[in-house]
Amino acid sequence: MVNLFAPDPVDPDDPRIATALEVLAPYAAELGLPRPTAPATFAADFEEQVDVVATEGVPVFSVTFGVPPAATTERLHASGAVVGATATTVAEARTLAAAGVDFVCAQGSEAGGHRGSFGTGAADDLIGLVALVPQVCDAVDVPVVAAGGIADGRGIAAALVLGACAAQLGTAFLLSPEAGTSPPYRDAVRAAAPEATTVTRAFSGRRARGVDNRFARELAGRDDLPPYPVLNALTSPLRRAAAEQGRAEFLSLWAGQAVGLARELPAGELVTRLADEARAALDAG
Amino acid sequence: MVNLFAPDPVDPDDPRIATALEVLAPYAAELGLPRPTAPATFAADFEEQVDVVATEGVPVFSVTFGVPPAATTERLHASGAVVGATATTVAEARTLAAAGVDFVCAQGSEAGGHRGSFGTGAADDLIGLVALVPQVCDAVDVPVVAAGGIADGRGIAAALVLGACAAQLGTAFLLSPEAGTSPPYRDAVRAAAPEATTVTRAFSGRRARGVDNRFARELAGRDDLPPYPVLNALTSPLRRAAAEQGRAEFLSLWAGQAVGLARELPAGELVTRLADEARAALDAG
Repeated sequence: MVNLFAPDPVDPDDPRIATALEVLAPYAAELGLPRPTAPATFAADFEEQVDVVATEGVPVFSVTFGVPPAATTERLHASGAVVGATATTVAEARTLAAAGVDFVCAQGSEAGGHRGSFGTGAADDLIGLVALVPQVCDAVDVPVVAAGGIADGRGIAAALVLGACAAQLGTAFLLSPEAGTSPPYRDAVRAAAPEATTVTRAFSGRRARGVDNRFARELAGRDDLPPYPVLNALTSPLRRAAAEQGRAEFLSLWAGQAVGLARELPAGELVTRLADEARAALDAG
Repeated sequence: MVNLFAPDPVDPDDPRIATALEVLAPYAAELGLPRPTAPATFAADFEEQVDVVATEGVPVFSVTFGVPPAATTERLHASGAVVGATATTVAEARTLAAAGVDFVCAQGSEAGGHRGSFGTGAADDLIGLVALVPQVCDAVDVPVVAAGGIADGRGIAAALVLGACAAQLGTAFLLSPEAGTSPPYRDAVRAAAPEATTVTRAFSGRRARGVDNRFARELAGRDDLPPYPVLNALTSPLRRAAAEQGRAEFLSLWAGQAVGLARELPAGELVTRLADEARAALDAG
Protein backbone atom coordinates (compact mmCIF):
# COMPACT_ATOMS: atom_id res chain seq x y z
CA MET A 1 0.00 0.00 0.00
CA VAL A 2 1.15 3.53 -0.83
CA ASN A 3 -0.43 6.73 0.50
CA LEU A 4 0.26 10.08 -1.18
CA PHE A 5 -0.65 13.63 -0.30
CA ALA A 6 -3.00 15.08 -2.94
CA PRO A 7 -1.30 18.02 -4.67
CA ASP A 8 -1.87 21.45 -3.10
CA PRO A 9 -1.27 24.56 -5.22
CA VAL A 10 2.14 26.23 -4.79
CA ASP A 11 2.74 29.94 -5.45
CA PRO A 12 6.51 30.59 -5.45
CA ASP A 13 5.78 34.35 -5.41
CA ASP A 14 3.66 34.14 -2.22
CA PRO A 15 4.74 37.14 -0.09
CA ARG A 16 4.24 34.98 3.03
CA ILE A 17 7.40 33.07 2.06
CA ALA A 18 9.50 36.10 3.00
CA THR A 19 7.64 36.36 6.34
CA ALA A 20 8.31 32.68 7.06
CA LEU A 21 12.03 33.00 6.23
CA GLU A 22 12.19 35.96 8.64
CA VAL A 23 10.35 34.03 11.40
CA LEU A 24 12.53 30.94 10.93
CA ALA A 25 15.88 32.80 10.89
CA PRO A 26 16.41 32.91 14.69
CA TYR A 27 15.56 29.20 15.00
CA ALA A 28 18.07 28.39 12.23
CA ALA A 29 20.68 30.46 14.06
CA GLU A 30 19.96 28.61 17.31
CA LEU A 31 20.58 25.33 15.47
CA GLY A 32 23.80 26.65 13.90
CA LEU A 33 22.30 26.60 10.39
CA PRO A 34 22.73 29.26 7.69
CA ARG A 35 19.92 31.80 7.21
CA PRO A 36 16.97 29.93 5.58
CA THR A 37 16.24 30.40 1.88
CA ALA A 38 13.43 29.22 -0.39
CA PRO A 39 14.14 25.93 -2.21
CA ALA A 40 13.77 25.53 -5.99
CA THR A 41 10.79 23.20 -5.56
CA PHE A 42 8.45 22.85 -2.58
CA ALA A 43 7.03 19.34 -3.07
CA ALA A 44 7.50 16.17 -5.10
CA ASP A 45 5.54 16.01 -8.37
CA PHE A 46 2.29 14.11 -7.76
CA GLU A 47 2.02 12.75 -11.32
CA GLU A 48 5.57 11.39 -11.17
CA GLN A 49 4.74 9.69 -7.87
CA VAL A 50 1.57 8.16 -9.34
CA ASP A 51 3.64 6.93 -12.32
CA VAL A 52 5.80 4.89 -9.96
CA VAL A 53 2.76 3.50 -8.09
CA ALA A 54 1.09 2.41 -11.35
CA THR A 55 4.28 1.01 -12.92
CA GLU A 56 5.23 -0.97 -9.84
CA GLY A 57 1.76 -2.52 -9.59
CA VAL A 58 1.11 -1.36 -6.01
CA PRO A 59 -2.11 -3.19 -4.99
CA VAL A 60 -3.60 -0.54 -2.68
CA PHE A 61 -3.29 3.22 -3.19
CA SER A 62 -4.72 6.03 -1.11
CA VAL A 63 -4.76 9.80 -1.11
CA THR A 64 -4.84 12.24 1.80
CA PHE A 65 -5.77 15.98 1.64
CA GLY A 66 -8.35 15.66 -1.13
CA VAL A 67 -10.25 13.71 -3.75
CA PRO A 68 -8.05 11.53 -6.01
CA PRO A 69 -8.08 13.16 -9.47
CA ALA A 70 -10.33 11.16 -11.84
CA ALA A 71 -7.41 10.46 -14.20
CA THR A 72 -5.35 9.10 -11.30
CA THR A 73 -8.14 6.78 -10.14
CA GLU A 74 -8.70 5.53 -13.71
CA ARG A 75 -5.02 4.90 -14.29
CA LEU A 76 -4.58 3.07 -10.98
CA HIS A 77 -7.73 1.02 -11.47
CA ALA A 78 -6.30 0.00 -14.88
CA SER A 79 -3.07 -1.07 -13.12
CA GLY A 80 -5.16 -3.28 -10.83
CA ALA A 81 -4.97 -1.09 -7.75
CA VAL A 82 -7.69 -0.44 -5.19
CA VAL A 83 -8.03 3.32 -4.57
CA GLY A 84 -9.06 4.99 -1.32
CA ALA A 85 -8.95 8.38 0.33
CA THR A 86 -9.22 10.02 3.75
CA ALA A 87 -12.34 11.74 5.15
CA THR A 88 -12.56 13.68 8.43
CA THR A 89 -16.27 14.52 8.12
CA VAL A 90 -19.40 12.81 6.84
CA ALA A 91 -19.57 15.42 4.05
CA GLU A 92 -16.03 14.59 2.89
CA ALA A 93 -16.85 10.86 2.95
CA ARG A 94 -19.88 11.49 0.71
CA THR A 95 -17.75 13.53 -1.71
CA LEU A 96 -15.17 10.73 -1.93
CA ALA A 97 -17.78 8.01 -2.46
CA ALA A 98 -19.40 10.08 -5.23
CA ALA A 99 -15.95 10.41 -6.86
CA GLY A 100 -15.69 6.62 -7.08
CA VAL A 101 -13.15 5.65 -4.43
CA ASP A 102 -13.11 1.97 -3.46
CA PHE A 103 -12.81 2.66 0.27
CA VAL A 104 -12.89 5.58 2.67
CA CYS A 105 -10.46 6.03 5.55
CA ALA A 106 -12.39 7.79 8.35
CA GLN A 107 -9.77 9.80 10.28
CA GLY A 108 -10.85 10.69 13.82
CA SER A 109 -9.75 13.82 15.64
CA GLU A 110 -7.46 11.62 17.75
CA ALA A 111 -5.12 10.90 14.84
CA GLY A 112 -1.45 11.84 14.91
CA GLY A 113 0.18 13.62 12.00
CA HIS A 114 -1.61 15.54 9.31
CA ARG A 115 -5.37 16.04 9.23
CA GLY A 116 -6.73 14.73 5.92
CA SER A 117 -9.39 17.45 5.81
CA PHE A 118 -10.27 18.96 2.45
CA GLY A 119 -13.85 20.12 2.87
CA THR A 120 -14.95 23.64 3.65
CA GLY A 121 -17.70 25.08 5.74
CA ALA A 122 -17.51 22.62 8.63
CA ALA A 123 -17.68 24.35 12.01
CA ASP A 124 -15.59 21.56 13.49
CA ASP A 125 -13.89 18.82 11.49
CA LEU A 126 -12.17 17.43 14.59
CA ILE A 127 -14.68 14.61 15.02
CA GLY A 128 -13.89 11.81 17.45
CA LEU A 129 -13.62 8.35 15.90
CA VAL A 130 -16.45 6.85 17.96
CA ALA A 131 -18.86 9.41 16.47
CA LEU A 132 -17.32 9.58 12.99
CA VAL A 133 -17.13 5.91 12.00
CA PRO A 134 -20.80 4.90 12.47
CA GLN A 135 -22.04 8.05 10.71
CA VAL A 136 -19.63 7.57 7.79
CA CYS A 137 -20.65 3.89 7.55
CA ASP A 138 -24.30 4.97 7.36
CA ALA A 139 -23.52 7.62 4.70
CA VAL A 140 -21.47 5.65 2.15
CA ASP A 141 -21.72 2.25 0.46
CA VAL A 142 -17.97 1.52 0.29
CA PRO A 143 -15.89 -0.14 3.04
CA VAL A 144 -14.66 2.16 5.82
CA VAL A 145 -11.23 1.95 7.44
CA ALA A 146 -10.96 3.57 10.90
CA ALA A 147 -7.90 5.68 11.79
CA GLY A 148 -7.05 7.82 14.79
CA GLY A 149 -6.59 7.05 18.47
CA ILE A 150 -6.17 3.30 17.97
CA ALA A 151 -2.99 1.80 19.41
CA ASP A 152 -3.92 -1.52 20.92
CA GLY A 153 -6.34 -4.39 20.47
CA ARG A 154 -9.09 -2.63 22.44
CA GLY A 155 -9.07 0.17 19.86
CA ILE A 156 -9.07 -2.26 16.94
CA ALA A 157 -12.03 -4.13 18.45
CA ALA A 158 -13.82 -0.79 18.91
CA ALA A 159 -13.23 0.14 15.25
CA LEU A 160 -14.74 -3.16 14.13
CA VAL A 161 -17.86 -2.97 16.31
CA LEU A 162 -18.37 0.66 15.17
CA GLY A 163 -18.73 -0.68 11.62
CA ALA A 164 -15.25 -0.32 10.12
CA CYS A 165 -13.83 -3.21 8.10
CA ALA A 166 -10.29 -2.50 9.31
CA ALA A 167 -8.24 -0.27 11.59
CA GLN A 168 -5.20 1.81 10.62
CA LEU A 169 -2.51 2.36 13.29
CA GLY A 170 0.40 4.77 13.23
CA THR A 171 1.30 6.01 16.71
CA ALA A 172 1.31 2.40 17.97
CA PHE A 173 4.45 1.71 15.90
CA LEU A 174 6.46 4.86 16.75
CA LEU A 175 8.63 3.03 19.29
CA SER A 176 9.22 -0.06 17.16
CA PRO A 177 12.91 -0.44 16.20
CA GLU A 178 11.89 -0.51 12.51
CA ALA A 179 10.29 2.97 12.70
CA GLY A 180 12.31 5.96 11.53
CA THR A 181 11.59 7.77 14.80
CA SER A 182 14.65 9.83 15.80
CA PRO A 183 16.02 9.47 19.37
CA PRO A 184 14.63 12.81 20.69
CA TYR A 185 11.26 12.01 19.06
CA ARG A 186 11.26 8.57 20.78
CA ASP A 187 11.94 10.21 24.13
CA ALA A 188 9.04 12.63 23.62
CA VAL A 189 6.68 9.77 22.72
CA ARG A 190 7.75 7.78 25.79
CA ALA A 191 7.05 10.73 28.08
CA ALA A 192 3.76 11.92 26.55
CA ALA A 193 0.32 11.72 28.16
CA PRO A 194 -2.64 11.79 25.72
CA GLU A 195 -3.35 15.38 26.77
CA ALA A 196 0.19 16.37 25.72
CA THR A 197 -0.67 16.43 22.00
CA THR A 198 -1.97 19.42 20.12
CA VAL A 199 -3.01 20.29 16.57
CA THR A 200 -0.63 22.79 14.97
CA ARG A 201 0.07 24.36 11.57
CA ALA A 202 3.52 25.53 12.67
CA PHE A 203 5.63 22.87 11.00
CA SER A 204 4.00 22.30 7.62
CA GLY A 205 1.27 24.86 7.02
CA ARG A 206 -1.35 22.13 7.38
CA ARG A 207 -2.92 21.11 10.66
CA ALA A 208 -1.28 18.09 12.22
CA ARG A 209 -1.33 16.53 15.69
CA GLY A 210 1.86 16.00 17.66
CA VAL A 211 3.36 16.29 21.11
CA ASP A 212 3.26 19.98 22.03
CA ASN A 213 6.63 21.70 22.13
CA ARG A 214 8.32 25.09 22.00
CA PHE A 215 8.15 25.56 18.21
CA ALA A 216 4.41 24.76 18.10
CA ARG A 217 3.73 27.08 21.05
CA GLU A 218 5.79 29.97 19.71
CA LEU A 219 4.15 29.87 16.27
CA ALA A 220 0.62 29.18 17.56
CA GLY A 221 -2.06 31.43 16.11
CA ARG A 222 0.13 32.94 13.34
CA ASP A 223 -1.91 33.27 10.18
CA ASP A 224 0.72 35.11 8.13
CA LEU A 225 2.76 32.03 7.22
CA PRO A 226 2.46 30.23 3.86
CA PRO A 227 0.27 27.11 3.49
CA TYR A 228 1.34 23.51 2.90
CA PRO A 229 3.54 22.38 1.15
CA VAL A 230 5.48 25.65 1.16
CA LEU A 231 5.94 26.00 4.93
CA ASN A 232 6.71 22.27 5.15
CA ALA A 233 9.63 22.72 2.73
CA LEU A 234 10.85 25.84 4.54
CA THR A 235 10.96 24.17 7.98
CA SER A 236 12.44 20.91 6.67
CA PRO A 237 16.16 21.83 7.15
CA LEU A 238 15.44 22.96 10.73
CA ARG A 239 13.66 19.72 11.57
CA ARG A 240 16.44 17.62 10.04
CA ALA A 241 19.09 19.46 12.04
CA ALA A 242 16.99 19.28 15.22
CA ALA A 243 16.70 15.48 14.89
CA GLU A 244 20.48 15.19 14.43
CA GLN A 245 21.19 17.49 17.39
CA GLY A 246 18.61 15.86 19.71
CA ARG A 247 16.60 19.08 19.99
CA ALA A 248 12.99 17.91 20.44
CA GLU A 249 11.77 21.50 20.84
CA PHE A 250 12.16 22.08 17.07
CA LEU A 251 10.94 18.68 15.86
CA SER A 252 7.53 17.79 14.49
CA LEU A 253 6.71 15.16 17.12
CA TRP A 254 3.70 13.71 15.27
CA ALA A 255 1.68 11.46 17.57
CA GLY A 256 -1.99 10.72 18.13
CA GLN A 257 -3.94 10.84 21.36
CA ALA A 258 -3.29 7.12 21.95
CA VAL A 259 0.39 8.01 22.43
CA GLY A 260 0.45 6.51 25.93
CA LEU A 261 -0.23 3.08 24.43
CA ALA A 262 2.83 2.93 22.11
CA ARG A 263 5.06 -0.04 22.96
CA GLU A 264 8.75 -0.78 22.44
CA LEU A 265 8.20 -3.92 20.38
CA PRO A 266 9.40 -5.10 16.96
CA ALA A 267 6.69 -4.38 14.40
CA GLY A 268 5.96 -8.04 13.61
CA GLU A 269 5.60 -9.00 17.26
CA LEU A 270 3.38 -5.95 17.84
CA VAL A 271 1.05 -6.96 14.98
CA THR A 272 0.66 -10.45 16.45
CA ARG A 273 -0.14 -9.01 19.87
CA LEU A 274 -2.61 -6.50 18.42
CA ALA A 275 -4.53 -9.30 16.69
CA ASP A 276 -4.61 -11.39 19.88
CA GLU A 277 -5.72 -8.41 21.98
CA ALA A 278 -8.47 -7.43 19.54
CA ARG A 279 -9.87 -10.96 19.57
CA ALA A 280 -9.74 -11.04 23.40
CA ALA A 281 -11.47 -7.64 23.66
CA LEU A 282 -14.27 -8.79 21.32
CA ASP A 283 -14.70 -12.05 23.22
CA ALA A 284 -14.88 -10.24 26.58
CA GLY A 285 -17.24 -7.47 25.36
CA MET B 1 -28.71 8.95 39.79
CA VAL B 2 -28.12 12.68 40.26
CA ASN B 3 -25.28 14.65 38.66
CA LEU B 4 -24.34 18.09 39.99
CA PHE B 5 -21.93 20.74 38.81
CA ALA B 6 -19.11 21.21 41.33
CA PRO B 7 -19.24 24.75 42.73
CA ASP B 8 -17.21 27.37 40.86
CA PRO B 9 -16.27 30.60 42.65
CA VAL B 10 -18.56 33.59 41.97
CA ASP B 11 -17.38 37.20 42.26
CA PRO B 12 -20.43 39.49 42.14
CA ASP B 13 -18.06 42.49 41.73
CA ASP B 14 -16.36 41.03 38.63
CA PRO B 15 -16.03 43.97 36.18
CA ARG B 16 -16.63 41.54 33.31
CA ILE B 17 -20.29 41.37 34.39
CA ALA B 18 -20.81 44.93 33.11
CA THR B 19 -19.13 43.98 29.81
CA ALA B 20 -21.42 40.98 29.43
CA LEU B 21 -24.55 43.03 30.16
CA GLU B 22 -23.40 45.49 27.45
CA VAL B 23 -22.71 42.68 24.94
CA LEU B 24 -26.05 40.98 25.66
CA ALA B 25 -28.18 44.16 25.45
CA PRO B 26 -28.70 44.13 21.64
CA TYR B 27 -29.65 40.43 21.72
CA ALA B 28 -32.17 41.12 24.50
CA ALA B 29 -33.60 43.97 22.41
CA GLU B 30 -33.88 41.69 19.38
CA LEU B 31 -35.89 39.24 21.51
CA GLY B 32 -38.10 42.03 22.87
CA LEU B 33 -36.71 41.66 26.39
CA PRO B 34 -35.80 44.46 28.82
CA ARG B 35 -32.15 45.45 29.11
CA PRO B 36 -30.33 42.62 30.98
CA THR B 37 -29.38 43.06 34.64
CA ALA B 38 -27.35 40.95 37.07
CA PRO B 39 -29.45 38.54 39.19
CA ALA B 40 -29.21 38.38 42.98
CA THR B 41 -27.61 34.91 42.86
CA PHE B 42 -25.78 33.26 39.99
CA ALA B 43 -26.09 29.57 40.85
CA ALA B 44 -27.90 27.16 43.16
CA ASP B 45 -26.13 26.45 46.46
CA PHE B 46 -24.13 23.22 46.12
CA GLU B 47 -24.41 22.25 49.78
CA GLU B 48 -28.19 22.64 49.69
CA GLN B 49 -28.33 20.43 46.60
CA VAL B 50 -26.16 17.78 48.28
CA ASP B 51 -28.49 17.92 51.31
CA VAL B 52 -31.40 16.88 49.13
CA VAL B 53 -29.39 14.08 47.47
CA ALA B 54 -28.31 12.67 50.85
CA THR B 55 -31.73 13.03 52.48
CA GLU B 56 -33.58 11.42 49.58
CA GLY B 57 -31.18 8.44 49.55
CA VAL B 58 -30.17 8.82 45.90
CA PRO B 59 -28.17 5.64 45.14
CA VAL B 60 -25.69 7.10 42.61
CA PHE B 61 -24.25 10.60 42.74
CA SER B 62 -21.74 12.24 40.43
CA VAL B 63 -20.00 15.57 40.06
CA THR B 64 -18.87 17.42 36.95
CA PHE B 65 -16.35 20.32 36.76
CA GLY B 66 -14.15 19.10 39.59
CA VAL B 67 -13.28 16.78 42.44
CA PRO B 68 -16.15 16.07 44.84
CA PRO B 69 -15.30 17.84 48.14
CA ALA B 70 -14.15 15.27 50.73
CA ALA B 71 -17.00 16.20 53.08
CA THR B 72 -19.54 15.66 50.29
CA THR B 73 -18.13 12.23 49.43
CA GLU B 74 -18.11 11.21 53.12
CA ARG B 75 -21.65 12.39 53.67
CA LEU B 76 -22.98 10.64 50.55
CA HIS B 77 -21.09 7.44 51.32
CA ALA B 78 -22.73 7.51 54.76
CA SER B 79 -26.14 7.87 53.07
CA GLY B 80 -25.33 4.72 51.04
CA ALA B 81 -24.59 6.47 47.74
CA VAL B 82 -21.94 5.55 45.20
CA VAL B 83 -19.95 8.68 44.20
CA GLY B 84 -18.35 9.36 40.84
CA ALA B 85 -16.95 12.27 38.85
CA THR B 86 -16.03 13.27 35.31
CA ALA B 87 -12.51 13.23 33.82
CA THR B 88 -11.52 14.53 30.39
CA THR B 89 -7.84 13.62 30.68
CA VAL B 90 -5.79 10.81 32.22
CA ALA B 91 -4.38 13.30 34.74
CA GLU B 92 -7.89 14.29 35.88
CA ALA B 93 -8.85 10.62 36.20
CA ARG B 94 -5.83 10.01 38.43
CA THR B 95 -6.73 13.01 40.60
CA LEU B 96 -10.29 11.73 41.03
CA ALA B 97 -9.20 8.19 41.88
CA ALA B 98 -6.75 9.55 44.47
CA ALA B 99 -9.62 11.57 45.97
CA GLY B 100 -11.56 8.36 46.56
CA VAL B 101 -14.34 8.40 43.96
CA ASP B 102 -16.07 5.06 43.37
CA PHE B 103 -16.11 5.46 39.57
CA VAL B 104 -14.77 7.78 36.89
CA CYS B 105 -16.80 9.00 33.93
CA ALA B 106 -14.35 9.41 31.02
CA GLN B 107 -15.81 12.19 28.84
CA GLY B 108 -14.53 12.15 25.27
CA SER B 109 -14.13 15.26 23.13
CA GLU B 110 -17.21 14.15 21.18
CA ALA B 111 -19.55 14.84 24.11
CA GLY B 112 -22.38 17.33 23.85
CA GLY B 113 -22.97 19.94 26.54
CA HIS B 114 -20.44 21.08 29.08
CA ARG B 115 -16.87 19.82 29.19
CA GLY B 116 -16.18 18.34 32.62
CA SER B 117 -12.57 19.56 32.55
CA PHE B 118 -11.02 20.82 35.77
CA GLY B 119 -7.31 20.19 35.32
CA THR B 120 -4.77 22.74 34.24
CA GLY B 121 -1.70 22.57 32.10
CA ALA B 122 -3.03 20.19 29.46
CA ALA B 123 -2.18 21.31 25.93
CA ASP B 124 -5.33 19.65 24.66
CA ASP B 125 -8.06 18.19 26.88
CA LEU B 126 -10.30 17.45 23.88
CA ILE B 127 -9.37 13.77 23.79
CA GLY B 128 -11.39 11.41 21.63
CA LEU B 129 -13.18 8.62 23.50
CA VAL B 130 -11.39 5.81 21.65
CA ALA B 131 -8.04 7.12 22.94
CA LEU B 132 -9.26 8.31 26.35
CA VAL B 133 -11.07 5.25 27.69
CA PRO B 134 -8.27 2.64 27.40
CA GLN B 135 -5.68 5.03 28.88
CA VAL B 136 -8.00 5.98 31.77
CA CYS B 137 -8.75 2.29 32.39
CA ASP B 138 -5.00 1.60 32.56
CA ALA B 139 -4.43 4.55 34.93
CA VAL B 140 -7.09 3.99 37.61
CA ASP B 141 -8.38 1.01 39.61
CA VAL B 142 -12.03 2.10 39.78
CA PRO B 143 -14.71 1.30 37.15
CA VAL B 144 -14.82 3.64 34.14
CA VAL B 145 -18.02 4.86 32.46
CA ALA B 146 -17.60 6.08 28.86
CA ALA B 147 -19.38 9.25 27.71
CA GLY B 148 -19.23 11.23 24.49
CA GLY B 149 -20.07 10.42 20.88
CA ILE B 150 -22.14 7.33 21.74
CA ALA B 151 -25.69 7.32 20.38
CA ASP B 152 -26.42 3.80 19.21
CA GLY B 153 -25.53 0.20 19.99
CA ARG B 154 -22.34 0.35 17.93
CA GLY B 155 -21.03 3.07 20.24
CA ILE B 156 -22.07 1.20 23.37
CA ALA B 157 -20.30 -1.94 22.12
CA ALA B 158 -17.20 0.16 21.38
CA ALA B 159 -17.24 1.60 24.92
CA LEU B 160 -17.37 -1.91 26.39
CA VAL B 161 -14.55 -3.35 24.27
CA LEU B 162 -12.42 -0.27 25.06
CA GLY B 163 -12.64 -1.29 28.73
CA ALA B 164 -15.54 0.76 30.11
CA CYS B 165 -18.05 -0.98 32.37
CA ALA B 166 -20.91 1.16 31.01
CA ALA B 167 -21.78 3.85 28.49
CA GLN B 168 -23.52 7.16 29.18
CA LEU B 169 -25.71 8.62 26.42
CA GLY B 170 -27.24 12.09 26.17
CA THR B 171 -27.55 13.26 22.56
CA ALA B 172 -29.22 9.95 21.65
CA PHE B 173 -32.28 10.96 23.71
CA LEU B 174 -32.66 14.58 22.51
CA LEU B 175 -35.48 13.71 20.11
CA SER B 176 -37.37 11.43 22.51
CA PRO B 177 -40.78 12.86 23.42
CA GLU B 178 -39.84 12.69 27.11
CA ALA B 179 -36.85 15.03 26.63
CA GLY B 180 -37.23 18.72 27.48
CA THR B 181 -35.85 19.68 24.08
CA SER B 182 -37.67 22.80 22.80
CA PRO B 183 -39.14 22.76 19.25
CA PRO B 184 -36.41 24.96 17.66
CA TYR B 185 -33.74 22.88 19.43
CA ARG B 186 -35.33 19.67 18.06
CA ASP B 187 -35.26 21.11 14.54
CA ALA B 188 -31.58 21.98 14.88
CA VAL B 189 -30.75 18.46 16.11
CA ARG B 190 -32.68 16.88 13.23
CA ALA B 191 -30.77 18.97 10.66
CA ALA B 192 -27.27 18.67 12.14
CA ALA B 193 -24.33 16.77 10.64
CA PRO B 194 -21.61 15.73 13.14
CA GLU B 195 -19.36 18.49 11.76
CA ALA B 196 -22.04 21.06 12.65
CA THR B 197 -21.17 21.07 16.34
CA THR B 198 -18.60 23.31 17.95
CA VAL B 199 -17.19 23.95 21.42
CA THR B 200 -18.14 27.40 22.71
CA ARG B 201 -17.97 29.42 25.92
CA ALA B 202 -20.54 31.92 24.64
CA PHE B 203 -23.60 30.69 26.53
CA SER B 204 -22.31 29.77 29.98
CA GLY B 205 -18.69 30.86 30.38
CA ARG B 206 -17.60 27.20 30.35
CA ARG B 207 -16.76 25.28 27.22
CA ALA B 208 -19.65 23.20 25.92
CA ARG B 209 -20.39 21.46 22.63
CA GLY B 210 -23.50 22.26 20.64
CA VAL B 211 -24.80 22.87 17.15
CA ASP B 212 -23.05 26.00 15.88
CA ASN B 213 -25.26 29.06 15.55
CA ARG B 214 -25.23 32.84 15.31
CA PHE B 215 -24.78 33.54 19.05
CA ALA B 216 -21.81 31.13 19.31
CA ARG B 217 -20.22 32.59 16.18
CA GLU B 218 -20.71 36.23 17.18
CA LEU B 219 -19.22 35.72 20.65
CA ALA B 220 -16.41 33.38 19.51
CA GLY B 221 -12.96 34.28 20.80
CA ARG B 222 -14.16 36.88 23.36
CA ASP B 223 -12.12 36.55 26.51
CA ASP B 224 -13.57 39.57 28.31
CA LEU B 225 -16.76 37.85 29.47
CA PRO B 226 -17.24 36.46 32.99
CA PRO B 227 -16.71 32.74 33.71
CA TYR B 228 -19.26 30.09 34.62
CA PRO B 229 -21.70 30.24 36.41
CA VAL B 230 -21.96 34.02 36.05
CA LEU B 231 -22.31 34.18 32.26
CA ASN B 232 -24.67 31.22 32.39
CA ALA B 233 -27.00 33.18 34.69
CA LEU B 234 -26.73 36.32 32.56
CA THR B 235 -27.66 34.57 29.29
CA SER B 236 -30.43 32.49 30.88
CA PRO B 237 -33.33 34.94 30.24
CA LEU B 238 -32.27 35.27 26.58
CA ARG B 239 -32.19 31.50 26.11
CA ARG B 240 -35.56 31.06 27.76
CA ALA B 241 -37.14 33.71 25.52
CA ALA B 242 -35.43 32.29 22.42
CA ALA B 243 -36.88 28.83 23.13
CA GLU B 244 -40.38 30.31 23.52
CA GLN B 245 -40.03 32.38 20.36
CA GLY B 246 -38.55 29.57 18.26
CA ARG B 247 -35.29 31.48 17.71
CA ALA B 248 -32.62 28.74 17.45
CA GLU B 249 -29.91 31.33 16.74
CA PHE B 250 -29.90 32.40 20.41
CA LEU B 251 -30.32 28.95 21.98
CA SER B 252 -27.67 26.74 23.51
CA LEU B 253 -28.20 23.78 21.16
CA TRP B 254 -26.14 21.31 23.21
CA ALA B 255 -25.42 18.18 21.18
CA GLY B 256 -22.51 15.79 20.77
CA GLN B 257 -20.79 14.70 17.58
CA ALA B 258 -23.06 11.65 17.34
CA VAL B 259 -25.95 14.07 16.70
CA GLY B 260 -26.78 12.44 13.35
CA LEU B 261 -27.67 9.23 15.21
CA ALA B 262 -30.42 10.72 17.44
CA ARG B 263 -33.77 9.01 16.84
CA GLU B 264 -37.38 10.08 17.35
CA LEU B 265 -38.27 7.25 19.70
CA PRO B 266 -39.80 7.08 23.18
CA ALA B 267 -36.99 6.72 25.73
CA GLY B 268 -38.00 3.23 26.87
CA GLU B 269 -38.18 1.86 23.34
CA LEU B 270 -34.84 3.49 22.53
CA VAL B 271 -33.17 1.82 25.52
CA THR B 272 -34.42 -1.59 24.40
CA ARG B 273 -33.13 -0.99 20.87
CA LEU B 274 -29.77 0.23 22.14
CA ALA B 275 -29.28 -2.95 24.16
CA ASP B 276 -30.25 -5.15 21.19
CA GLU B 277 -27.94 -3.20 18.86
CA ALA B 278 -25.01 -3.36 21.26
CA ARG B 279 -25.36 -7.12 21.58
CA ALA B 280 -25.59 -7.49 17.79
CA ALA B 281 -22.52 -5.30 17.25
CA LEU B 282 -20.49 -7.36 19.75
CA ASP B 283 -21.62 -10.63 18.17
CA ALA B 284 -20.72 -9.43 14.66
CA GLY B 285 -17.31 -7.95 15.66
